[in-house]
Amino acid sequence: MEIYLDNSATTRVCSEAASAAVSVMTEIYGNPSAVHSFGVKAKTVLENSRRVLADTLGAEPAEIYFSHSGTLANNTAIFGAVNARKKMGNRIVTTRLEHPSVARCMDVLEEQGYQVIRLTPTKDGTFDPMELLDVVNKNTILVSAMLVNNETGAINPVEMISRAVKRVSAPALIHVDAIQGFGKLPVKPGKMGIDLMTLSGHKVHAPKGVGALYIGKNAKNIKPVIFGGGQENGLFSGTEALPAIAGFAAAVNSFPNIGQKLSETVKLRDYMLSLFKDNPRVHINSPADALPYIVNMSVTGIPSQVLINYLSDRNIYVSAGSACKKGHRSEVLSSLGVGSNYIDSAIRVSFSRYTTREEIDIFVSAVNDAVKNIRTKL
Amino acid sequence: MEIYLDNSATTRVCSEAASAAVSVMTEIYGNPSAVHSFGVKAKTVLENSRRVLADTLGAEPAEIYFSHSGTLANNTAIFGAVNARKKMGNRIVTTRLEHPSVARCMDVLEEQGYQVIRLTPTKDGTFDPMELLDVVNKNTILVSAMLVNNETGAINPVEMISRAVKRVSAPALIHVDAIQGFGKLPVKPGKMGIDLMTLSGHKVHAPKGVGALYIGKNAKNIKPVIFGGGQENGLFSGTEALPAIAGFAAAVNSFPNIGQKLSETVKLRDYMLSLFKDNPRVHINSPADALPYIVNMSVTGIPSQVLINYLSDRNIYVSAGSACKKGHRSEVLSSLGVGSNYIDSAIRVSFSRYTTREEIDIFVSAVNDAVKNIRTKL
Repeated sequence: MEIYLDNSATTRVCSEAASAAVSVMTEIYGNPSAVHSFGVKAKTVLENSRRVLADTLGAEPAEIYFSHSGTLANNTAIFGAVNARKKMGNRIVTTRLEHPSVARCMDVLEEQGYQVIRLTPTKDGTFDPMELLDVVNKNTILVSAMLVNNETGAINPVEMISRAVKRVSAPALIHVDAIQGFGKLPVKPGKMGIDLMTLSGHKVHAPKGVGALYIGKNAKNIKPVIFGGGQENGLFSGTEALPAIAGFAAAVNSFPNIGQKLSETVKLRDYMLSLFKDNPRVHINSPADALPYIVNMSVTGIPSQVLINYLSDRNIYVSAGSACKKGHRSEVLSSLGVGSNYIDSAIRVSFSRYTTREEIDIFVSAVNDAVKNIRTKL
Repeated sequence: MEIYLDNSATTRVCSEAASAAVSVMTEIYGNPSAVHSFGVKAKTVLENSRRVLADTLGAEPAEIYFSHSGTLANNTAIFGAVNARKKMGNRIVTTRLEHPSVARCMDVLEEQGYQVIRLTPTKDGTFDPMELLDVVNKNTILVSAMLVNNETGAINPVEMISRAVKRVSAPALIHVDAIQGFGKLPVKPGKMGIDLMTLSGHKVHAPKGVGALYIGKNAKNIKPVIFGGGQENGLFSGTEALPAIAGFAAAVNSFPNIGQKLSETVKLRDYMLSLFKDNPRVHINSPADALPYIVNMSVTGIPSQVLINYLSDRNIYVSAGSACKKGHRSEVLSSLGVGSNYIDSAIRVSFSRYTTREEIDIFVSAVNDAVKNIRTKL
């Protein structure tokens, strides 16, 4: 039995999504751009999938663009927004804790001469709304922050961004990388004053190889970063990854009630924490009000990779830092003021909507065994 | 029964590829970047897939990079090559008949100040090696040409490019978009003197959503066009589309002997032409020595879309121009000197390795019916 607790890295494709993908691969395999009825069938799958995404975001289908990855969607949102507003200012506000698909774009923009302000994380791992208010000025053309941190589960107050922008009448577009929050928190970009929002399929039980970008009506003239046949209204050229797109929609359609699942997952997380309560070697790095699906914790005295291997040998899978970048010491945790002895022994345990108490029991028991067994070997 | 003759637009995923994709979606679903053994399993699938692609190209695995689309691979090859050599010259040589994922990049580079020379197609739809020799100079940093034209099947003499480049000791890198030729012609970039070669999975019975870029040892410092977690040696950031990648490798592994299939397809194509021989309304636009998988033909007096619809109603699917751009009049055909009455009635019939004589019989019979029936309605 495999106990997969690395769902923030990627998830198992759910049966609904796998079936949808297979149907597209072997039956509705036309090119959505083809003008015969077989292409129209594929186009219908594409547009139905778009509507599913739109509905769950409280958006219009025309506001949803399918990309081949969350990374491509983040790149397009950031470079596109800056390009659209570059005549109105030079300042970009982001945070120090972004995923590399945002952070690296910011580095590139900085090299190009933009003034990039990176908000310092508070001790709970979020950005400080007061600091945000301080730095967003009339010269600010983009504010970009992630909804949920991928390493700690910390939830940023992204709804504050539009208030900060409006307060000084900044020309800024607002981008939120919602990859870790989508499907776990209720996410309505329009209501939250967000212009651009990035999603990824494989974090929510869809196949790897599909992302989506929400672009609200306020964000006009977002230009592509890659060029070609003009698919997705010119924004994401290249034949649409229809098996993964249909799988994405099927996965979203199969979501349980997000709010109810969130409450259940809070209980599951608290159950796990209660089991660790009497183990003085276990230190929880995630803030108490983090997304309950992600628990960053340290088991002092056991280096991360040693514990990962110990668990892996028992078919239990957890992660060190973000799975998107291999083997780096977590900048996120050091930003939080977590000591280096904790960082070196930090693991990330991430649940999915399918995670059970039984799996938690086995995981906790294995960690407790590791504490006993590995200590004796040290 | 569906008769799908639009295989240059996209193909049905073969059973081997669909099985491989399903296995990755539901069993080997780890993130290849994850450091636990479940991630290592996924990484193994990735590296085995890379080896399959490398073997079929006569290349090293380290020369193969998986992208999320052929479009992204073409963009990266072109912008990457120009960026790598920009200090050595300002001229780029390409052709007038490239796919939009190449042609649009050339437009962007031209706007940036590069001198883009577009070779004029000869009457057989290929570029003229003599013109190539004339325009490749010491200032040339990139030559990019497609192997097989997607609308006519015309095969370019791409092996001439390295001779033209060497003749004047140009600093040019050589890029070939081999999307329409791969799996149908033997393609060995190293032997052909090609530095960069683009492939796409969904043209060869793999799922949509995967491409590959071959980069030979001569082409150093190719930089990415999108930024993020650094996957694929930094070139194609974003979680690898592993279901589609595994499907790509499975599809390639299931190839019959390419040379034998090519001979069989020549016979199949010639069989179709023989059936049309006595129909004066049918005009073949593809050159005689084109790739036999693609036949561009006109049925005079019947506008393309009318014939496509007529056939589509009978579950026979063919294309007008390139499927990657909807409803445009073929620039490719007008470049060839095909008259506008032929262009307006041109269809593209494209075979796969699974196309049968029975399917050709039904298609030809339907076209002959269309000539009778639609004429009476005109």
